[in-house]
Amino acid sequence: MARTLIRGGLVVTAAEETYADVLVDGERVAALAAPEVAEAWAPGADRVVDATGMYVIPGGVDAHTHMEMPFGGTVASDTFETGTRAAAFGGTTTIVDFAIQQVGGTLRAGLDAWHAKADGNCAIDYAFHMILADVNDAVLKEMDQLVSEGVTSFKMFMAYPGVLYSDDGRILRAMQQAANNGALPMMHAENGIAIDVLIEQALANGRTDPRVHGEVRKALLEAEATHRAIQLARVAGSPLYVVHVSAAEAVAELTAARDLGLNVFGETCPQYLFLSTDDLARPGFEGAKYVCSTPLRPVEHQAALWRGLRSDDLSVVSTDHCPFCFVGQKDLGRDDFSKIPNGLPGVENRMDLLHQAVLDGHITRRRWIELACATPARMFGLYPRKGTIAPGADADLVVYDPAAEQTVSAATHHMNVDYSAYEGRRLTGRARTVLSRGTVVVDDGKYTGHAGHGSYLKRDTCQYLV
Amino acid sequence: MARTLIRGGLVVTAAEETYADVLVDGERVAALAAPEVAEAWAPGADRVVDATGMYVIPGGVDAHTHMEMPFGGTVASDTFETGTRAAAFGGTTTIVDFAIQQVGGTLRAGLDAWHAKADGNCAIDYAFHMILADVNDAVLKEMDQLVSEGVTSFKMFMAYPGVLYSDDGRILRAMQQAANNGALPMMHAENGIAIDVLIEQALANGRTDPRVHGEVRKALLEAEATHRAIQLARVAGSPLYVVHVSAAEAVAELTAARDLGLNVFGETCPQYLFLSTDDLARPGFEGAKYVCSTPLRPVEHQAALWRGLRSDDLSVVSTDHCPFCFVGQKDLGRDDFSKIPNGLPGVENRMDLLHQAVLDGHITRRRWIELACATPARMFGLYPRKGTIAPGADADLVVYDPAAEQTVSAATHHMNVDYSAYEGRRLTGRARTVLSRGTVVVDDGKYTGHAGHGSYLKRDTCQYLV
Amino acid sequence: MARTLIRGGLVVTAAEETYADVLVDGERVAALAAPEVAEAWAPGADRVVDATGMYVIPGGVDAHTHMEMPFGGTVASDTFETGTRAAAFGGTTTIVDFAIQQVGGTLRAGLDAWHAKADGNCAIDYAFHMILADVNDAVLKEMDQLVSEGVTSFKMFMAYPGVLYSDDGRILRAMQQAANNGALPMMHAENGIAIDVLIEQALANGRTDPRVHGEVRKALLEAEATHRAIQLARVAGSPLYVVHVSAAEAVAELTAARDLGLNVFGETCPQYLFLSTDDLARPGFEGAKYVCSTPLRPVEHQAALWRGLRSDDLSVVSTDHCPFCFVGQKDLGRDDFSKIPNGLPGVENRMDLLHQAVLDGHITRRRWIELACATPARMFGLYPRKGTIAPGADADLVVYDPAAEQTVSAATHHMNVDYSAYEGRRLTGRARTVLSRGTVVVDDGKYTGHAGHGSYLKRDTCQYLV
Amino acid sequence: MARTLIRGGLVVTAAEETYADVLVDGERVAALAAPEVAEAWAPGADRVVDATGMYVIPGGVDAHTHMEMPFGGTVASDTFETGTRAAAFGGTTTIVDFAIQQVGGTLRAGLDAWHAKADGNCAIDYAFHMILADVNDAVLKEMDQLVSEGVTSFKMFMAYPGVLYSDDGRILRAMQQAANNGALPMMHAENGIAIDVLIEQALANGRTDPRVHGEVRKALLEAEATHRAIQLARVAGSPLYVVHVSAAEAVAELTAARDLGLNVFGETCPQYLFLSTDDLARPGFEGAKYVCSTPLRPVEHQAALWRGLRSDDLSVVSTDHCPFCFVGQKDLGRDDFSKIPNGLPGVENRMDLLHQAVLDGHITRRRWIELACATPARMFGLYPRKGTIAPGADADLVVYDPAAEQTVSAATHHMNVDYSAYEGRRLTGRARTVLSRGTVVVDDGKYTGHAGHGSYLKRDTCQYLV
Repeated sequence: MARTLIRGGLVVTAAEETYADVLVDGERVAALAAPEVAEAWAPGADRVVDATGMYVIPGGVDAHTHMEMPFGGTVASDTFETGTRAAAFGGTTTIVDFAIQQVGGTLRAGLDAWHAKADGNCAIDYAFHMILADVNDAVLKEMDQLVSEGVTSFKMFMAYPGVLYSDDGRILRAMQQAANNGALPMMHAENGIAIDVLIEQALANGRTDPRVHGEVRKALLEAEATHRAIQLARVAGSPLYVVHVSAAEAVAELTAARDLGLNVFGETCPQYLFLSTDDLARPGFEGAKYVCSTPLRPVEHQAALWRGLRSDDLSVVSTDHCPFCFVGQKDLGRDDFSKIPNGLPGVENRMDLLHQAVLDGHITRRRWIELACATPARMFGLYPRKGTIAPGADADLVVYDPAAEQTVSAATHHMNVDYSAYEGRRLTGRARTVLSRGTVVVDDGKYTGHAGHGSYLKRDTCQYLV
Repeated sequence: MARTLIRGGLVVTAAEETYADVLVDGERVAALAAPEVAEAWAPGADRVVDATGMYVIPGGVDAHTHMEMPFGGTVASDTFETGTRAAAFGGTTTIVDFAIQQVGGTLRAGLDAWHAKADGNCAIDYAFHMILADVNDAVLKEMDQLVSEGVTSFKMFMAYPGVLYSDDGRILRAMQQAANNGALPMMHAENGIAIDVLIEQALANGRTDPRVHGEVRKALLEAEATHRAIQLARVAGSPLYVVHVSAAEAVAELTAARDLGLNVFGETCPQYLFLSTDDLARPGFEGAKYVCSTPLRPVEHQAALWRGLRSDDLSVVSTDHCPFCFVGQKDLGRDDFSKIPNGLPGVENRMDLLHQAVLDGHITRRRWIELACATPARMFGLYPRKGTIAPGADADLVVYDPAAEQTVSAATHHMNVDYSAYEGRRLTGRARTVLSRGTVVVDDGKYTGHAGHGSYLKRDTCQYLV
Repeated sequence: MARTLIRGGLVVTAAEETYADVLVDGERVAALAAPEVAEAWAPGADRVVDATGMYVIPGGVDAHTHMEMPFGGTVASDTFETGTRAAAFGGTTTIVDFAIQQVGGTLRAGLDAWHAKADGNCAIDYAFHMILADVNDAVLKEMDQLVSEGVTSFKMFMAYPGVLYSDDGRILRAMQQAANNGALPMMHAENGIAIDVLIEQALANGRTDPRVHGEVRKALLEAEATHRAIQLARVAGSPLYVVHVSAAEAVAELTAARDLGLNVFGETCPQYLFLSTDDLARPGFEGAKYVCSTPLRPVEHQAALWRGLRSDDLSVVSTDHCPFCFVGQKDLGRDDFSKIPNGLPGVENRMDLLHQAVLDGHITRRRWIELACATPARMFGLYPRKGTIAPGADADLVVYDPAAEQTVSAATHHMNVDYSAYEGRRLTGRARTVLSRGTVVVDDGKYTGHAGHGSYLKRDTCQYLV
Repeated sequence: MARTLIRGGLVVTAAEETYADVLVDGERVAALAAPEVAEAWAPGADRVVDATGMYVIPGGVDAHTHMEMPFGGTVASDTFETGTRAAAFGGTTTIVDFAIQQVGGTLRAGLDAWHAKADGNCAIDYAFHMILADVNDAVLKEMDQLVSEGVTSFKMFMAYPGVLYSDDGRILRAMQQAANNGALPMMHAENGIAIDVLIEQALANGRTDPRVHGEVRKALLEAEATHRAIQLARVAGSPLYVVHVSAAEAVAELTAARDLGLNVFGETCPQYLFLSTDDLARPGFEGAKYVCSTPLRPVEHQAALWRGLRSDDLSVVSTDHCPFCFVGQKDLGRDDFSKIPNGLPGVENRMDLLHQAVLDGHITRRRWIELACATPARMFGLYPRKGTIAPGADADLVVYDPAAEQTVSAATHHMNVDYSAYEGRRLTGRARTVLSRGTVVVDDGKYTGHAGHGSYLKRDTCQYLV
């Protein structure tokens, strides 16, 4: 197997910042060593990467993506091929995507369909969560089987009645099953029943533009659903992972739950940290680019999110990457905001936006890695293969240039979508060299990997349960 | 019109404790006066009541009764005639009962049905809340009409799916309507969807006895629904009145809401203050006597309820009087706790149990009157006719003997039900003479009123909204 | 004894709003009656007051005044004569002033000194709290004696080290004594030790103007002391009354304590409700007029105070009336804000400012009377003589014109101070006729009372303890 | 320099659990490597340690010890020589002890005195905090100088009036200085002024036995002081580290502060996690062995402490090691609990007790290392030299046998004190081989180090500030 030696960098993990050289042997990290020890390896190395002035960090783990996801009559514009390639460019080397059960269908059929989409197409390693759209006795039994196949987390929706929605009884039953089989319930926490009333009323009043999307999906209704999901998990005795938290009031519910010592975890996304209802209110139909659910919130909510990220009331930053082109997709809702496909592109931008947050003083350098790599890996049973740099771990490594300057733009990004949610934003920091299981897949802005390099990851159960 | 002079008593209202004589002229209180002023009235009085050593208090207002209510294939055993007579014996001179909309039916039809039951049969004055079982556009419009007819409060159920249950969308819409027409939404706050899962699981496991009723209707699921109702009311901009609060965790939700200054109010009932899951767990099928929803809780919850009553996080004590005979009704659920008709008798016991709470140091004498008379009257738009003693108020008065001793028993009570929830309990204090609109209806243990004396009360809207 | 009949008004108490006529016989209220009953009294009345279109309310009870108080080398400019006369003009018929123990002196000597100041000089009834400046074993014993003489509340200072300051040990010991003798500990809650450090640092930095007074006396240091006082009271098992609460953070401490069901009470003052640091920051030396402690706060704090008043986390509005003339007194601190005598005039304005708050929607009409009359009377053991209108109560009555318009001004007020804190403010509502124990002391803007009419009130202990 | 290779162990740090071999070169860790890489080092190693079946963990960092500390007329019985040797036996390789300023003396003099005690005597590395007993302008300036010498944390006492006590003004000033020079204020948070009143009263009532120590030092007074310290730190803009937190109510204050995102940290000690007031109440004078301050609490408090340790509301477990012999020292207080020297032995037991907590399910294995090694090192500026295992870090390493069984006893421990607080307790887990800066100092129960091996550590400032 090939040996790669990465020399002279500052190795940054969730826990440590060490000047150490990293020896890669085949697909795994073989050693970290002081330079005087590592220099003995140089002659035998197949490749020596000079990381002087660079960080050496674990590849990013994006625990929330939706490649090729059908939604509202269209399909998310990134395939597993384009989406994972873009992820690699952004320094992310693992994604956990969502396979979807069809109403009336089995989990098996849903999972198989997603395997078929991903298999042989991915630039980086990938795993699956399962979306439960139709909980019943048979499905509860299937959950156990999926856990044994490495699908150890199951998402439900308190939003989207008639589509993906589960009522509280189904949620409770799935949580009870998870309490027994070790799976982690994930929740889209918005009171969709109430929100749909407000949507209908808004449309009846002729209020059709994208900004209304942010008004009807009220912060109180996100907080309410978050509270409800927590109480149901307490009744079931299960843990809970709340996806894409955007409202300060919802963070407060997580804080209260965690103050009780409950196994309740929160995720937020870059869009909630860097964008706001000001973007939803952009003139013309521009706001449609920023339609996602939970929605963007008034800018004051950002402080609560950053506070939550610092104090671990929010534990993970994922992207909820779910891109729809402005032309041809987003414009399905030109006359009715409720028909705008929900979702933003972001899988390529996450690591850099969070590095910018380090520079801006919101989080520390180690916390950056913890939120973006280590915790998602642990949360979803991928640790220690993913999320850290240690002997035996997968050699998913990023040589990161903390001083590189870039301007985010659809003109230069690699995601298959015709706009960027961060168009024109100046960021400092960028992945220079990206290794996936020991193979360089991106180097100096060039893609050196190939579709199919990425393997399916069987996951263990959540490692955060106490 | 006849004049009655009540002399020598201590007039106790929610606000005052005054030695004063009370002059009744016809159906109204005409004056309160110091004895030296009042003695001039004695010669012209048709009746002089000696209240020396007694309290003179406003007649009780029981804001939560279910006379002749159909439930689970049977009907509550007290008619308006027997129930209001029993109320009078217990010092209660006003009830607010619940008219029920049929699913698929109009509010009008439901209200008419209840008018028909009550009209000409009541011993004391009565009013109606309306239960919304089927919210739709027509019903929302009808709500406005009912408000103008004096039905100014509307109850919904988050429990009992498939029967009285309203989903969050219907609740939100009704609350929005109330925010506009001034009505007060009332809520049975239990997550019935989740509870039904637990009921089904318990029965499937052969757990059929009455104590299981208390286990599946979890305190956390009452608290959850309470929180949800509060958030929906905030979204709607409406007030909220939560009925029969029994769990400490639900009180905590009310406390948090009231700390925010919200128009959120809580009611509890004597059964939650004086009984517990120990009663539900009585041997044999005895526990069935104590099956009601929300259920009785472990005895530790009582301290939180008393604390809430003192601090006004709970504002009203009503009975939720809904009696079913042990023989022939409660035993419908002998093999399945979920088939036991839900409800307890209590309309006759409330004033005395709360007076006992005064003696036990839980509440002050004035707070007794506030919780049992003044606040329910204000809350439901009956003030100042009911709930206090002041010139112009209805002469609903009770000469209350604070030293009388009694032993509660089905053998001696006047409710039409074959058991007492408080059988054998010794209480100090009892109504001696009860006036309804100037007429003595109970005197020294004898009923001197008649069916039909009681009139329907058109109510104003809630007087607690700020 | 003379009889007065007040006809046609709306009697407003903390609990009731009733159209009733009020019969006064000598010094007491003899009866409330419906007009048709009361008309029989007119012929025999010595005086008939037409209150048509007016409110008839209890005289105000101002539980926090400092007449003739020595402070910082000068003396508050209102004597008991001028101050109580001004109070009467403003519809206040009872004050509770603070007698002060000298360091090294006895309570007896301090109380006697204040009796000497007040005796024979007051226009309205008065009582005393006692300020403990030097707690020791002898003083603790004296406390018991004072309680028996009707001085049932004792104030301590966590501010003003070296002057009135008590350390936590002295506070604890006095609270323990109060827990035994039924007295109510009152607290000026500011961390004076920390504040004095900040004052010294500010002055050392040449920051001498009045606005700095508001900056160094930080809201967090009021909240800290409030929390500490509450914990000490819990350890002692005593109740606690916190005077002049001004900071939102301090209200939050009271809210938390009251949520626990503790006997903790809060008072605020009109200046905190209507004025702010904007006034302290007025140009020139104008800000000195607004120097008091606790200090005025940024205007955002007002919402928390109003919320607290509505929810009863704040229970009393007193004035902390302690006037110092701008010329000759306030200017002692022209070069050093810490030398500005602390205090504002207000005893004449309180009832009207709070009536304005009713019109502005902050509180209800009944709550106005509760905060300004009934609760202070109950809190300090003056009920039912003061604070309400009921047979047997003192005939301290105000015929209040709710539609009268006035412009507050030093040019027209009756307080002995050369400025008004509310100069130029337009208010609607004004006392027209004021009775003190049955005697008209103010009528249509004219003073008809006399110095010495006001009597000393022996107080019972606090009536709010549960 | 000598090379040591540790083979076959599970390397456990705060962040990782990795099967890796560790190469030590001289005093530092040189590399971590997979076995197939590491085997190349074996031939050149001076020593190969077989760690099969063992954990390889960072040496413990005990951030709170009091060797040779004068207290109440006697001196803690462990010298730096005996205490650090005992620490090494227990797997702790760094202590941070407290140098004490004398009242009236300089920090320099205090620090020099402690250097003199420690220099040349320590078995392991050591550093110093400084206790501020007499804050004044000169001392504030000295603080800056000490920070530059590696003394970067300063402890103050809200307890012990007249001895080590600082009033709130002194605390505020020292905190302000720390806010400027980067130092970390540490606080003994108990309201000593109030406690001394309770002590005096207890003794006056003849209550002299050790259990009274736990009763007068009330949990509420620890919570109060904790809250006060937090507020003062907020005013000063400084961080805060609260030592030896023992009361659930104090944990709640830390939780609230951390929920606000404040730089507030809490430490607890094994005695609060494993002992209780039941020990203080042991018959005879046995309770004296358990007298320390803050005191042991009722056993119910332990759950709150464990919860805090899991959720990071408590971040560090130190020992507050301060031993006094039962015979000759503790018995100074035989007739007066307040004269019992305050303190317990524990420096040797901490790592094992916390490993037992892992086995008992209270914390995870990684959290064990985080609480006992990594966080104290970061908190007090010793990271990355101490607290972790990474290339470049000091080779302070423990080969820990997780299956070794031991019975704690004074008969076998190495601390210089005649009793053990954990006498007879069975624990699983024990340090087998302990390296300090690359030198084996304990091996298989034998001491192989020497006095003077331990060096003084100049510390950086706290690494947890955000």
